[in-house]
Amino acid sequence: MNQEHLNRIQRLQGAMEEAGLDAVFLYSAVNRLYFTGLKTSNGLLLVERQGKPVFYTDFRYLEVAHRVLKGVEIRKFKTAADQLADYAKMASAWKTIGYEGSLTVAQFLPLQEAMVHAKWTSVTTLIASLRGVKSASELDAIRRSAMANDALFKDLMEAFKPGMSELDMLRIFRMKEAARGLTESFDPILCAGVNAVECHHQPDNTVLKPNSELLIDMGVVVDDYCSDMTRTVFFGTPTPRFREIHNIVLEANRAVVEAVKPGMRCCDIDVVARKIIGSYGYGDYFDHGLGHSVGLEIHEMPSFSRTCETILQPGMVITDEPGIYLPGEVGVRIEDLLIVTETGCEVISHTPHEIVLPC
Amino acid sequence: MNQEHLNRIQRLQGAMEEAGLDAVFLYSAVNRLYFTGLKTSNGLLLVERQGKPVFYTDFRYLEVAHRVLKGVEIRKFKTAADQLADYAKMASAWKTIGYEGSLTVAQFLPLQEAMVHAKWTSVTTLIASLRGVKSASELDAIRRSAMANDALFKDLMEAFKPGMSELDMLRIFRMKEAARGLTESFDPILCAGVNAVECHHQPDNTVLKPNSELLIDMGVVVDDYCSDMTRTVFFGTPTPRFREIHNIVLEANRAVVEAVKPGMRCCDIDVVARKIIGSYGYGDYFDHGLGHSVGLEIHEMPSFSRTCETILQPGMVITDEPGIYLPGEVGVRIEDLLIVTETGCEVISHTPHEIVLPC
Repeated sequence: MNQEHLNRIQRLQGAMEEAGLDAVFLYSAVNRLYFTGLKTSNGLLLVERQGKPVFYTDFRYLEVAHRVLKGVEIRKFKTAADQLADYAKMASAWKTIGYEGSLTVAQFLPLQEAMVHAKWTSVTTLIASLRGVKSASELDAIRRSAMANDALFKDLMEAFKPGMSELDMLRIFRMKEAARGLTESFDPILCAGVNAVECHHQPDNTVLKPNSELLIDMGVVVDDYCSDMTRTVFFGTPTPRFREIHNIVLEANRAVVEAVKPGMRCCDIDVVARKIIGSYGYGDYFDHGLGHSVGLEIHEMPSFSRTCETILQPGMVITDEPGIYLPGEVGVRIEDLLIVTETGCEVISHTPHEIVLPC
Repeated sequence: MNQEHLNRIQRLQGAMEEAGLDAVFLYSAVNRLYFTGLKTSNGLLLVERQGKPVFYTDFRYLEVAHRVLKGVEIRKFKTAADQLADYAKMASAWKTIGYEGSLTVAQFLPLQEAMVHAKWTSVTTLIASLRGVKSASELDAIRRSAMANDALFKDLMEAFKPGMSELDMLRIFRMKEAARGLTESFDPILCAGVNAVECHHQPDNTVLKPNSELLIDMGVVVDDYCSDMTRTVFFGTPTPRFREIHNIVLEANRAVVEAVKPGMRCCDIDVVARKIIGSYGYGDYFDHGLGHSVGLEIHEMPSFSRTCETILQPGMVITDEPGIYLPGEVGVRIEDLLIVTETGCEVISHTPHEIVLPC
């Protein structure tokens, strides 16, 4: 826990003041990590509008909590009933309490019952908006994550060959990843040939044939921060149809990079890509959002979607991933990771977009 | 989806009949996998007391759902509002609806609001009791998972050497794992020397010294089924204190294997280990449960804990993992995976308990 974590808690308390929240229960591992820097599988950060937050955990993490946490009070979880009684006592001063939408019903209902006088409000959006704008140190970690992902991708391009199945390539992916001391930010998507049209295909025994495409959607984690990138590469001589679709998707991807700047609404960026793909008559074949934010989690808010009206701010990190999926024929997605800057955006995925390999 | 999945749904419907449940919403990926065999990141299995369940998913998985699912009706998710309206229409016939305790509040509250006339009941325990007794094919997968874990452990014993840090060993773990085409059922725990007393220590730069211990808690996933095993090995000549503590923990571990048989209560098995450790005066230093069930998830119910009164049945798969953690001195845990049989139990972790390696 360093000054940055203390600043985050202060910003949260400021946002609580504005939103009229008296206390916020943060049970999720990722929010506890964000606000304290400590990674534990069990804990609660209980933040009141003023004063020191309380960090509850079990015996397994008390020692490390005392060693690492500063500026928060550390308490050991009691039995469920005693713990609820403690909250109830504190809650006499609380009118409105914030909970995370990701909280499980099994956790939430007893809380609600123990503090039945209070109004419970979701803080999912509030916290997403705090986490949406990354600090310099977060951007640094995400840049390093994207660089590591580029390097791993290069390893794969040297190793993947026609004749291998998707599962063979998955095994190679995991060996190369481990050799670099990396972990993945999500199960890699490896689609050989026409499998590329299923945009969340799971690797199977499909063999990569000569003169066919391979769609690779992958990301790694560096210092807890995720990266995400997709390339659709071709082994052999690309068919005219592949070239056509790849060019359109790339045009959409590039247009987004030109369009992104602070002050724009996310949904307007989504339109930029959708218009281009639509102008070629493939609008019906791009049926997912254009992008999502990335940080401690692989899917964060805001997103480039038709409905997200969030205004872009410097420090946001969002994917730019248009795609066209023609059933039974060809599927192409090209995804880069963007950092919104003061004047536009910085593309932090440095792998070339057009990759043709021998077969 | 095969006959076994259909049988599971039938058993669920039978349990719903008994519990007076008219419908059950299964949103969790693991329960959808258990009842259908299909792995998707988004979906809902909506089971009524009679008739065909409905499987909802989004465009990404419709194709595979139609290919793989039998005996369930497949529908595409509508927009949130339309979807809720559909449920509300069906719900006119439902008095009591089951939900998973793992459901998020963000998912649950709109459901509750849309079907406000119904009584909502958690089905966490009901489903845990169905999943707690494994079928022959599940036991086969878990046996193969435990065997793969034994093999990976052997690779590690050949590779780990004093002078390596925990993070070095973690990297080796992941390379060996990938080389065998395995994934892990949880982040492996690697504790060098006195770190073994923190029972959920995260690997760091601590170097494994000659004449010291290494605690390894690890598991893999084979055909979606988890394994779990812990060994505390010694590099060099074990100290008398290490031998003493290791012997006591092993005695407790072995006594549990002798004690487990159908008809016993889980909490009584916990007592068996706790009594032995207590008899040597170390009761205060074994402050976690004795074990947990393992299956599609690494932590399932029932558990060998002081409070779990579940009666053991053949086909349950539970860990036997007593430990003693003496702060600043020595920590030992020995964990095997047990299958409850008709007459007792079968230990499916085949790695030797006492491992001393050169340094």
